Amino acid sequence: MVARAIQAAVTATQMPPGVFSLLHGRGHEAGMRLIRHAAIKAVGFTGSQRAGLALFRAAAARPEPIPVYAEMGSTNPIFVLPGVLRDGATTFAQGLLQSVTLGVGQFCTNPGLVFGLRSAEFDALAEAAGRLATASPPGTMLYPALCDHFRASLAEAEKLAGVRMLGKSSAAPALGQVPAAVLATDAATFQTQAALREEMFGPSTLLVSCGSTEELKDLARSLPGQLTATIHGTAEDLARHRGLISILEEKAGRLLFNGFPTGVEVCPSMHHGGPYPATTDVHFTSVGTAAIKRFARPVCYQNFPDEALPVELRNQNARGIWRLIDGQLTKEDA
Amino acid sequence: MVARAIQAAVTATQMPPGVFSLLHGRGHEAGMRLIRHAAIKAVGFTGSQRAGLALFRAAAARPEPIPVYAEMGSTNPIFVLPGVLRDGATTFAQGLLQSVTLGVGQFCTNPGLVFGLRSAEFDALAEAAGRLATASPPGTMLYPALCDHFRASLAEAEKLAGVRMLGKSSAAPALGQVPAAVLATDAATFQTQAALREEMFGPSTLLVSCGSTEELKDLARSLPGQLTATIHGTAEDLARHRGLISILEEKAGRLLFNGFPTGVEVCPSMHHGGPYPATTDVHFTSVGTAAIKRFARPVCYQNFPDEALPVELRNQNARGIWRLIDGQLTKEDA
Repeated sequence: MVARAIQAAVTATQMPPGVFSLLHGRGHEAGMRLIRHAAIKAVGFTGSQRAGLALFRAAAARPEPIPVYAEMGSTNPIFVLPGVLRDGATTFAQGLLQSVTLGVGQFCTNPGLVFGLRSAEFDALAEAAGRLATASPPGTMLYPALCDHFRASLAEAEKLAGVRMLGKSSAAPALGQVPAAVLATDAATFQTQAALREEMFGPSTLLVSCGSTEELKDLARSLPGQLTATIHGTAEDLARHRGLISILEEKAGRLLFNGFPTGVEVCPSMHHGGPYPATTDVHFTSVGTAAIKRFARPVCYQNFPDEALPVELRNQNARGIWRLIDGQLTKEDA
Repeated sequence: MVARAIQAAVTATQMPPGVFSLLHGRGHEAGMRLIRHAAIKAVGFTGSQRAGLALFRAAAARPEPIPVYAEMGSTNPIFVLPGVLRDGATTFAQGLLQSVTLGVGQFCTNPGLVFGLRSAEFDALAEAAGRLATASPPGTMLYPALCDHFRASLAEAEKLAGVRMLGKSSAAPALGQVPAAVLATDAATFQTQAALREEMFGPSTLLVSCGSTEELKDLARSLPGQLTATIHGTAEDLARHRGLISILEEKAGRLLFNGFPTGVEVCPSMHHGGPYPATTDVHFTSVGTAAIKRFARPVCYQNFPDEALPVELRNQNARGIWRLIDGQLTKEDA
């Protein structure tokens, strides 16, 4: 149905026929055959780290290597600073659960980790978040294998020493459904259990309590690349944790303050990307107006007669676009 | 000596110590060990296709893949259209030989192929270019292995049926020196001899005569990716060969008209890059102000308080830079 809608749009906007195709295939075979075809020049991909990396490596091994813009796993950590929890633990918990359960946790910007300082306030957050998870209805994931995988990951995490289940949908999941869940652990357990650092694809999040600001920053430093990283705090919190921002700038493509990472606006300032393993190409965004740059490349015209140039580069600025002429941005004719 | 000059500049401009290092090594071992080190996050490279591709593949095979901006071989084809040769075969030949012998043919933009239509004018060009090559002094290449390689490539090309030597430095090359050389062949030989399509690194060029405009365009279509492609012609020539420009736009990062590709200006409009095998990353230039983009990445700040933002993103435009605010380019404060 989606493909037919796109085909109709292609016709309506007089795009070249064949600009859009949909190929169905079980497993990776169709993708691997496509990526090895000489006519393919670039690849965009959203999915698991394993599949993305396999495509990336197959593209690099071609006689003519091609770029793969793979957007893969991300745990989208949230750092909750003390000030914001003093009055608003419940408000924060509500926002968190909404973000965690949006689209049954299948958004690539789903917040899977919440770091905070061990305190009465953080305990209150844990209690509120667990209660909200218990009250959340189970949800249907995109296909059954995702459900199986999420349930298995959840069961594995629950079994780990040092991990507690704070709350899980109390209603029984129907066929193809999974519960929402909030888990908790401490910094030491998080540091030693590799499974907790991996994306758990589905409607769950893990609260990690730290003993000190230094430990919070150490955990931030230990994280792999992310699509997003979020800080919740007061202005005072932020002034006291400038070092945390510097660390997160090295980790993520988008930094949020007092918000939740799900909801990705299509606009010029959006950067939906980030250091590996969030993506395989840190320069480009897969959402927003800059996303087209993945599939374009620069060409420089030197000493060409005006009439042989693309219309955007001719002396007369017929399109009225901004142009850099002798180092000056201008809309004037040259 | 160059490294010491750069170190002095690092100190004088108060760059962080260690921002520049020079490692010497025979063979590829030093480069391969560097590229596999976890602290290395991006690689720029200029050299042969073989070495560049080896680095690129090693980088892609790392646990954390990193970008390799390898600028590799390019034959920088020139297309000479009939009108320009009618009056100026000698002038063109002089410009060509100057470009071919500049830096003893070791510039990556050295024009190694010249395509034209079989005609009395193209014969006159061949005669003039051969004469100028004969009169050119031999030159010293950067290191002995390059001399050996150039001499071997030249000897191999000369031996091919259908290839003629139009002229070669008449003076005897000293130790470590190579002659300048101009060779000629026809389109059919060029199509069938793979060796002629490869970069011959050194002060030589190959004139290829075509029987028709269609054959000229077919040869253009058959070329691999290039740093540059050049057209010489009159305005009338260009109007008659619009199709050639479209073909070359798909082949090269920089298109020149009535000029020679050696000489790469460091400016915002420079694009020194091109489709594989000219480079391993078609988006970026290794010369010009945009070259820094290879080593930078976007970070998006969402909902951050003004004082926690980088100074360039704060409401007050303290640096007076152009900024895109709500889709409008402006130097105003927000």
